[in-house]
Amino acid sequence: MSYGLEETSSNKVFHGTLKKYSFTSAALGGLKANFNLFLPVNADTEHKVPLLVYLAGLTCTEDNGAQKGGFFGAASSEGIAILFPDTSPRGAGIEGEDADWDFGTGAGFYLNATNPEFAKNYNMLTHVTTELPAVLEQSGQPIDLSRQSIFGHSMGGHGALTLYLGSKTKQYRSASAFAPISNPSQAPWGHKAFSGYLEGGIDEGKANYDATEMIAKTKESVHILIDYGTGDNFYKAGQLLPENFLKAARDAGHDEVQVRVRSQEGYDHSYYFISTFASDHVHFHANFLKA
Amino acid sequence: MSYGLEETSSNKVFHGTLKKYSFTSAALGGLKANFNLFLPVNADTEHKVPLLVYLAGLTCTEDNGAQKGGFFGAASSEGIAILFPDTSPRGAGIEGEDADWDFGTGAGFYLNATNPEFAKNYNMLTHVTTELPAVLEQSGQPIDLSRQSIFGHSMGGHGALTLYLGSKTKQYRSASAFAPISNPSQAPWGHKAFSGYLEGGIDEGKANYDATEMIAKTKESVHILIDYGTGDNFYKAGQLLPENFLKAARDAGHDEVQVRVRSQEGYDHSYYFISTFASDHVHFHANFLKA
Repeated sequence: MSYGLEETSSNKVFHGTLKKYSFTSAALGGLKANFNLFLPVNADTEHKVPLLVYLAGLTCTEDNGAQKGGFFGAASSEGIAILFPDTSPRGAGIEGEDADWDFGTGAGFYLNATNPEFAKNYNMLTHVTTELPAVLEQSGQPIDLSRQSIFGHSMGGHGALTLYLGSKTKQYRSASAFAPISNPSQAPWGHKAFSGYLEGGIDEGKANYDATEMIAKTKESVHILIDYGTGDNFYKAGQLLPENFLKAARDAGHDEVQVRVRSQEGYDHSYYFISTFASDHVHFHANFLKA
Repeated sequence: MSYGLEETSSNKVFHGTLKKYSFTSAALGGLKANFNLFLPVNADTEHKVPLLVYLAGLTCTEDNGAQKGGFFGAASSEGIAILFPDTSPRGAGIEGEDADWDFGTGAGFYLNATNPEFAKNYNMLTHVTTELPAVLEQSGQPIDLSRQSIFGHSMGGHGALTLYLGSKTKQYRSASAFAPISNPSQAPWGHKAFSGYLEGGIDEGKANYDATEMIAKTKESVHILIDYGTGDNFYKAGQLLPENFLKAARDAGHDEVQVRVRSQEGYDHSYYFISTFASDHVHFHANFLKA
């Protein structure tokens, strides 16, 4: 199929190129979708580079991580591409979609909706895992899709962990997250998302889209890095619950080489926190992407 | 005098702290003014750190450089504070102040207005060079004001160069700029600013606020670094004219140790360009701030 891919901007950054594209997304019900793609300077069709996917948090777009994440210095030196999807469909026209900042537009939660009202458009899981790789492939990007890893922030950290752990095809070699929503079936944001998007509500979310539930059932060796800040108000409010994820991982036999969860004293939920540990995360993934 | 300094936000970043403050600015005619201040983790009253002042470009606020500049990694490792002033007074209520993006609000041009309509509020030169250091001093910030350098982007690059070259007290040890408006008396942005803010118009601007005119008359040794991108549409449109500055510097006997102007292939005017060379600039200033 043709996606009608259109390049809408291009910026040189850290010797590589960041381009924004727009296309017609079947996964999102035929709506226009945007993404940003960073290619390091060494990428070309003779030398395909690995791909790191960055999933942003609530209210964000494909631009926040690109503008404020501070990922490009490390990605340039490692020779890794970064894909920045949007966080939800835009303009589906569903009633109440724009009423709250933590549901609907900007808050797609990286799942496939089963509630009939949302099921046509809110399929960010398929968009990220299947559709965007196909778009990159079809448009001839110099990317080796057999080498992918994934990371994200907050809701996007939830997305990174669940897409990594949920992939039966082992699509991603490693996952990392900044302040992820780690146990959404036990947190208000998760309750709201699961109740709204899923016909089976919180139970369906708990069964399919909860990283803590998933790591508890994962037997295979994993490569996961998580950072969160002790000054993060959403952490304090019980929205993130990284300790639950850590406990479930250790109980399931994943040691600190497989699952490392770092508590960062005094850091908050902002991109200032992310940028501080941005290079750490890129280099972490490079260990696996370039292995 | 009391400035009524108020801390309005605080974020930990790269082991240091970024705080936003608001105060009543006499230089800006009694309006509220904001600034951001980054302090590296090693700063305390027993160990005062040097200060690097970052002046942002047209339409920006005190936030753009902090959020997108990518300066904090290098500033943290060098142990240097960074001050981010706003780019103009806000809410002066002067007719036409908000009509254009390149004049008035967000476009103070780092001069002291002499046109009576603007003279009460548009005094960004005094705000940056005198008032903000006094605010930092009075509030007991752990900063050694005898060690200051200055840099900026576009209009803020113009500001950095002119404040550095214009300081009779040698307030700044070094200056650098990303894509500076280098010869404003020959460029449309400069014509608009000088005609609007200055009673003597372009002639007054050329005499007092044009970096190319100033370097031509500077006998003392200087420390200046400039980067601009060959893909910058404002460069192509003749708004920046860095070659004029370079020629004037060489004609006045400033060699490439004193004045280095680097043409960066393919980069544009955005913060993606700035972030690429951010560390270079911070390390450049560290040579002089820590000498």
